[in-house]
Amino acid sequence: MCEANAYFKVGDQEELLLENVDKVIPQENWLLLEDIFGHRKLVRARIKELSLVDHKIYLEKLEQ
Amino acid sequence: MCEANAYFKVGDQEELLLENVDKVIPQENWLLLEDIFGHRKLVRARIKELSLVDHKIYLEKLEQ
Repeated sequence: MCEANAYFKVGDQEELLLENVDKVIPQENWLLLEDIFGHRKLVRARIKELSLVDHKIYLEKLEQ
Repeated sequence: MCEANAYFKVGDQEELLLENVDKVIPQENWLLLEDIFGHRKLVRARIKELSLVDHKIYLEKLEQ
């Protein structure tokens, strides 16, 4: 399986948001993430970087 | 390896842009894609959807 883990990245810190992410759908100022079990999270963030070989999705929080 | 293929999606059509993508770095109105061999493409697009279990990255072209 080639799912990835989603992290908020702040400086050198990585804060795990969701594991085993299958789908990511960007919306206006929001991201919808869905893991392989169908669990969803809607977060106010944008994609900062994908590093798929490392199974990592780095996100950046957006201001409320 | 858990790289993915990047496609432009227009309606139901998928147009392959780059295979074996490892890294995707969004920039202002641009995306930098890098495959597992280090080849890079800079495209005027945004991420429309990630479907990682299917190894697919769907992009949407932006106006010039």
